[in-house]
Amino acid sequence: MNAEDVKGFFCDRDRLEMADYLELDYYLECVGDIKTSLAHFCSEQSTAQWSRVGFDEDFRTLYGAKVIAWEVIGELPSLSYPVEQAAVGKIHACRVTIAHPHRNFGPKLPNLMTAVCGEGTFFTPGVPIVKLLDITFPENYLAEFDGPKFGIEGIRELLGAYDRPVFFGVVKPNIGLKPEHFAEIAYQSWLGGLDIAKDDEMLADVSWSTVRRRSELLGEARRKAERITGDKKIYLANITDEVDRMIEQHDIAVANGANALLVNALPVGLSAVRMLARHSKVPLIGHFPFIAAFSRLEKYGVHSRVITKLQRLAGLDAIIMPGFGNRMMTPEQEVLDNVNECLGDMGSIRRSLPVPGGSDSALTLGTVFRKVGSVDFGFVPGRGIFGHPMGPRAGAASIRQAWEAIEKGVLLDDYAVNHAELKAMLEK
Amino acid sequence: MNAEDVKGFFCDRDRLEMADYLELDYYLECVGDIKTSLAHFCSEQSTAQWSRVGFDEDFRTLYGAKVIAWEVIGELPSLSYPVEQAAVGKIHACRVTIAHPHRNFGPKLPNLMTAVCGEGTFFTPGVPIVKLLDITFPENYLAEFDGPKFGIEGIRELLGAYDRPVFFGVVKPNIGLKPEHFAEIAYQSWLGGLDIAKDDEMLADVSWSTVRRRSELLGEARRKAERITGDKKIYLANITDEVDRMIEQHDIAVANGANALLVNALPVGLSAVRMLARHSKVPLIGHFPFIAAFSRLEKYGVHSRVITKLQRLAGLDAIIMPGFGNRMMTPEQEVLDNVNECLGDMGSIRRSLPVPGGSDSALTLGTVFRKVGSVDFGFVPGRGIFGHPMGPRAGAASIRQAWEAIEKGVLLDDYAVNHAELKAMLEK
Repeated sequence: MNAEDVKGFFCDRDRLEMADYLELDYYLECVGDIKTSLAHFCSEQSTAQWSRVGFDEDFRTLYGAKVIAWEVIGELPSLSYPVEQAAVGKIHACRVTIAHPHRNFGPKLPNLMTAVCGEGTFFTPGVPIVKLLDITFPENYLAEFDGPKFGIEGIRELLGAYDRPVFFGVVKPNIGLKPEHFAEIAYQSWLGGLDIAKDDEMLADVSWSTVRRRSELLGEARRKAERITGDKKIYLANITDEVDRMIEQHDIAVANGANALLVNALPVGLSAVRMLARHSKVPLIGHFPFIAAFSRLEKYGVHSRVITKLQRLAGLDAIIMPGFGNRMMTPEQEVLDNVNECLGDMGSIRRSLPVPGGSDSALTLGTVFRKVGSVDFGFVPGRGIFGHPMGPRAGAASIRQAWEAIEKGVLLDDYAVNHAELKAMLEK
Repeated sequence: MNAEDVKGFFCDRDRLEMADYLELDYYLECVGDIKTSLAHFCSEQSTAQWSRVGFDEDFRTLYGAKVIAWEVIGELPSLSYPVEQAAVGKIHACRVTIAHPHRNFGPKLPNLMTAVCGEGTFFTPGVPIVKLLDITFPENYLAEFDGPKFGIEGIRELLGAYDRPVFFGVVKPNIGLKPEHFAEIAYQSWLGGLDIAKDDEMLADVSWSTVRRRSELLGEARRKAERITGDKKIYLANITDEVDRMIEQHDIAVANGANALLVNALPVGLSAVRMLARHSKVPLIGHFPFIAAFSRLEKYGVHSRVITKLQRLAGLDAIIMPGFGNRMMTPEQEVLDNVNECLGDMGSIRRSLPVPGGSDSALTLGTVFRKVGSVDFGFVPGRGIFGHPMGPRAGAASIRQAWEAIEKGVLLDDYAVNHAELKAMLEK
């Protein structure tokens, strides 16, 4: 690429009609001439060849991705992570903002992903290290998506649960329980005060515990728990499956009494989530398998914030994500970024309920509440409820007691004096 | 986890009915006691809690993942890649083979992915660095998948092309061409000797070039090229789209004359590929966007070999993958691993055509052929054909001339003396 060619991939933001563009933020490690690397980076993710041989034309004007801002963070002695066969030369760490014309792919998640984290992005000469940090969408692009059908408000309304976190629990043992035993455990946890008893993300439709059978039994148990407690409850059934079975699984589960559905967003694909959201009669909750495989390292892959944003666009009413604390190996700022992507302004797209999770119990509720900074979150223990020494009913009660203590501004230890379930958890 | 608990996650291979298990190979960096970390690793990806409180039961026997082989590679002074909030302690690099019971999820790709590279795998206490290196499937599990409907043999038969590589070309300019111009360029390339003219992976169904219009024009151009050359040709249309539009796009494209279809496997999801493969009347070719985001680094994420295997299982008749040479930043052994995953034995599953690609031209064909070691591959230049100084017909001809030279055992330089198209490419 000569100097003139390079110029064609740089542009002032003011000179672009930004409604036609997504803004992409990347961290890059560039080998060799920085501007040439950045031009290649734009070229590879858009107009890799911008004219026919023998024609005087330039497709870059309408279809080229363009650098609208860039900054050199510093020179590096070596790539942050070794890459075999990477180019050799001076290495610079850079931040770059690219205006990418969405007319190249339209409002379609698979095609968006292909453009922003596809071959071009990861196979640019001179750019072996790439992390997609963020995407900013113009209003007209967002308007093409429905987003969550229920959102936080819809889930709260379904439960009649306001001004407090939403209490989830992952029924454990997660794998191997007979549906009858599974239903009994969920039932006990509802009686203890849980809002939502959920399938583990690894438990879906298997011969020894079909979605049909679980939703029959748990639908019935849920209605019974609702009659006894006078509170609304949710059975969250995991219908993660081959995509051509998901609609059918939705229909079976919902008819039987599952009143929210879990789907593992990346394993089924974000587009399958969007399809399901269009069809769904109940809230859809997303879980996070596979995301860490490309988001954990600081300087390579795709930031989890991008995936949270896309999950919300795709229509998830709640998004389960790695939460706070060392257990989940996620920087606190990243958890907060993801929480904020659920709650922040996104045109006409409803807010999703953020559910930061990971080895939670009555002991961690206060910390999560303080860090999130509002009651707009879901709390999702597993063993912290179902491994409670006094059983799942007591496990659920210990969570509600912890919340009561927080609301009253009483220390857990003090509150536990008159609350046996909380006490047992503290002593565990 | 106490010593007795740890034991329950280790087992001799001989004591297991291996037909019930997938074998998973991982590279791990374990912090602290190795055996405890490995037990946690198995527990988190299967039976995180293996009994109900108050019941004498152990779900590990039937449902637990179990270490069947492990080896310490060595002690490390620090994690190979920094992970914020990772545990602190002695670090050991390990290889481990795990028997994971497939009854936990069944023959379903999204659920398989959830188990082997999901939350459990990437969020195990004491195991901040994980790479899934390989999966070995028992015959009874493979038998649940149809795999490629056409495979290498089907593609060869469709083209009448035997005993040589299959010649693909990515029509360029890739983004921005009017369908009429796009068709003209493809037509020229077919006349020049290309077997398959393909859409770029970033060009799908957009308002300025719909799949409907392209497939009409290219279907017609293809049939004309077939009449003139007497050879069979393929127009490979990219129907990567929201998953609920893919079947419709298939039907439109095929009815109009696209006789193979391109799909970006990870962006749409492997399960959507499987759905499409069940429906498809023509060969399906997969492209590789997004895979590098979790496979490039040697010691983190998921090895591309795993994804190639899953793409073949899902039913892709040909798999486009990063090829040889510095351009694609992929170790030669990894490219060969992926080629071999397409061609190797996999029960009753047909072979996929491997298409290692990246900035190819007449000049690289000999190298790719030599490295692959057989004619069973696809060759897929873009600018190497469509950026040829004499135009796309000459570009395609230069590839065929290069192959003639290779077959005759003549040096390209010598063969170019009487072949202007090859000569022009060599001089470029």
